Amino acid sequence: MKHILTPLILAAAFTALPAIADEADVLDPAIKAQAEALMAAGLKDDVGLEFTESLTTEIGPRLAGSDAEWRARQWAMIKLKDLNFQQAYIEDFNIPYWERVTETASVTGANPQKLAITALGGSKSTAKGGVEAEVVRFTSLADLKAAPADSLTGKIAFIDERMVRAQDGSGYGYAVAKRGGCAQAAADRGAVACLIRSAGTDSHRMPHTGGMTREGALGALPAAALAAPDADQLARLLERGPVNVKLNIQVKTADSAASGNVIAEVEGSSLKDEIVLIGCHLDSWDLGTGAIDDAAGCGIVVAAANLIQQLPGKPKRTIRVVLYGSEEVGLFGGKAYGEAHADQLDKHVLIAESDFGAGRIWRLTTGFGEGAMAYAKAMQDLVAPLGVVPGDNSSKGDSDVSVLGNMGVPAISADQDGTDYFDLHHTPDDTFDKIDPEAFRQNVAVYAALTYVAAETGWDFRKAAAPAIEDQ
Amino acid sequence: MKHILTPLILAAAFTALPAIADEADVLDPAIKAQAEALMAAGLKDDVGLEFTESLTTEIGPRLAGSDAEWRARQWAMIKLKDLNFQQAYIEDFNIPYWERVTETASVTGANPQKLAITALGGSKSTAKGGVEAEVVRFTSLADLKAAPADSLTGKIAFIDERMVRAQDGSGYGYAVAKRGGCAQAAADRGAVACLIRSAGTDSHRMPHTGGMTREGALGALPAAALAAPDADQLARLLERGPVNVKLNIQVKTADSAASGNVIAEVEGSSLKDEIVLIGCHLDSWDLGTGAIDDAAGCGIVVAAANLIQQLPGKPKRTIRVVLYGSEEVGLFGGKAYGEAHADQLDKHVLIAESDFGAGRIWRLTTGFGEGAMAYAKAMQDLVAPLGVVPGDNSSKGDSDVSVLGNMGVPAISADQDGTDYFDLHHTPDDTFDKIDPEAFRQNVAVYAALTYVAAETGWDFRKAAAPAIEDQ
Repeated sequence: MKHILTPLILAAAFTALPAIADEADVLDPAIKAQAEALMAAGLKDDVGLEFTESLTTEIGPRLAGSDAEWRARQWAMIKLKDLNFQQAYIEDFNIPYWERVTETASVTGANPQKLAITALGGSKSTAKGGVEAEVVRFTSLADLKAAPADSLTGKIAFIDERMVRAQDGSGYGYAVAKRGGCAQAAADRGAVACLIRSAGTDSHRMPHTGGMTREGALGALPAAALAAPDADQLARLLERGPVNVKLNIQVKTADSAASGNVIAEVEGSSLKDEIVLIGCHLDSWDLGTGAIDDAAGCGIVVAAANLIQQLPGKPKRTIRVVLYGSEEVGLFGGKAYGEAHADQLDKHVLIAESDFGAGRIWRLTTGFGEGAMAYAKAMQDLVAPLGVVPGDNSSKGDSDVSVLGNMGVPAISADQDGTDYFDLHHTPDDTFDKIDPEAFRQNVAVYAALTYVAAETGWDFRKAAAPAIEDQ
Repeated sequence: MKHILTPLILAAAFTALPAIADEADVLDPAIKAQAEALMAAGLKDDVGLEFTESLTTEIGPRLAGSDAEWRARQWAMIKLKDLNFQQAYIEDFNIPYWERVTETASVTGANPQKLAITALGGSKSTAKGGVEAEVVRFTSLADLKAAPADSLTGKIAFIDERMVRAQDGSGYGYAVAKRGGCAQAAADRGAVACLIRSAGTDSHRMPHTGGMTREGALGALPAAALAAPDADQLARLLERGPVNVKLNIQVKTADSAASGNVIAEVEGSSLKDEIVLIGCHLDSWDLGTGAIDDAAGCGIVVAAANLIQQLPGKPKRTIRVVLYGSEEVGLFGGKAYGEAHADQLDKHVLIAESDFGAGRIWRLTTGFGEGAMAYAKAMQDLVAPLGVVPGDNSSKGDSDVSVLGNMGVPAISADQDGTDYFDLHHTPDDTFDKIDPEAFRQNVAVYAALTYVAAETGWDFRKAAAPAIEDQ
């Protein structure tokens, strides 16, 4: 899933608006009409849904570096060829590999019972047969970090912090801190393992996995997430007195495993060296079939590009669709793409990634040069009839493409409604039945229109602000 | 959970109404006032919720015949003594024992992936290491039964029938038929195993367990339920061509295991030999902590009896609270009680069991003699202000007490809203956090009022209809 900035950084663009062209003028009426026709076609498109159904059904879970992710790449090549993309190819790279094998937890002692857990990506194995230790509860990562050194010797740290539900997903930024930080903070205080309340918003007995480290394959300690009802249960038991938990996590790792990015293109005409890149990621966590994270994103961007390539004439710029590999375990696909295309950065005119499920897009955020705000306004106005409000100019692009965004490539974020996203994200419940076809098609419509406009207009989204004219 | 009759049997009582006393007269104003005070107290009661929280937290899952069920009985004895019940005792019995050990399923071949399953109670083990076979899909049990003999030799039968959501739970009666019948029907046609779509209404990756046989510990075949998204997935894969599934189910069984009913009493005064019995069951399935099925029911009836015993004077009749054992695996507790108290049947004046979760009671159904309909009306009128509408006169009592109801003991069914019940029932999600405290307390209020009236009035619920007076 996308990286969510918390708090949002308000760009300086709005504080001192430069002189800009009349917004009503910037979008050529013929291009606008074509974009509107693409939106109408997107709202009726089934290609994206079928792509998503096929990926989640035929490949299922696609853990980064696994055989299944390999199969997903071959599957994607066939699908893209069937859709008549002019070219499709794979850019290979390697990643450190991590895979869960066993994950069980039980309360021992007077109130013995199983707990529903899942190992966090990068968790170490416990000793064979597991580790049993007393649990110490903390209400936040900060609370754990405030504990004295050696205060957890031989114990299990438990961070019992709830995630806040939010339309823009901003609760996740806070929730993920404990997932990333628990193991190291616990290890620093002598703990033998780390448990966290799932970084999710559901109330089911399905714990929420996710990477706890973005570098290397192994974290500091065995670490797992408890399903919300199990975190409640553990908290209730701890109110009654000391609680021991037996934790058994066994994982398999490898220093290097094959991964790759699958790339398809609609080759441009007069500006074919210039690239509008729309992305998604092909890998998923292993618990569900990765339907909302992120088969849906791939279905959306592939369907959008497909609508454009079916037009009688090619747009001026090249549209490059990148189905990234190994996003979940450390943005490896995005980084590999950035390295492979470092000398092409100035040719990337606009980037966007769909990686926040399949809810309706409700806001369009840009990350343009200060002189290009008329283009932002024109794009926002174009998709407003689809129920999209203007966002600010802070976008660096989401997930994998943010690697390019952080290197200065202009970006847009078509923000989806994520109110329910973290009920499903990274859990076994991330399955195809959870996708609302109507909302999905609205996404295709938005991506098709914006991608087309970016490719056809030849706009410079990096455009510097005109020099300010000083008042005399 | 309760046995749900489908379709409901409309009793003859309403077709030829006998002459009855003026309904406004039958309930003594002083008794009515006391019952209303009990309702008001029930709406503020925390004893039942605390009882439920404690059982689900400290004991957790309580599989029939297990050590946990044994611990639940000892726990209950302590709780009942703490609540100052005049007496509490255990009536022991034995049951055949069944326990799941391992349960995994995977699609093999070109689209390999795991499926979320749970073994059905009474499932046989597969061969060590599992069985792999082609799946044949049927849309109903009838569809499977229509298949020719030997048509499934060496294959796995899959019944992919959806359960209908209904306030009164009536979708369950149909859904359970496939759970009970799949293994035998599949075995009769040469199959090696049976899979069913879960007999539940949720859409999560949590399959729904339950007994497939009410007699003996072992069914005809290895049998398991697929979570709804996994049934969808299997159906989609089958649309693409033949699918093989590898199923590994290992179970542990014993011919005899200890179980028992825990009984507490509020001893009556002038009619102390006459018994008003309110029940629930203490055992649960093993996947969740059995909060709605049926710790809540026990909390409700214990709290109701507790409110009555706190009154300054004891009611005329004895109130007997029975926390049955081993309901889930074949109504063993109800049958054991029926045998142990066979000579006391005529002393049981009224029975009721709370075993349908903790949703609001919306209907009061009776099972009285035709001459006792004024009492039904009076009881229905009494609880109407709590949002309860009158039901018919078809009740035989629910779950365990239906054993007595079927032997002619008058019964009431305080029907709870079960719209969401089968989202949780028999799944890992049956946990304490799913209980709505306000709805729970309404249940306590209804049970307290009705139990008190039944004990204090001395009404004869068996009362025969007055002889019809023929028109001349």
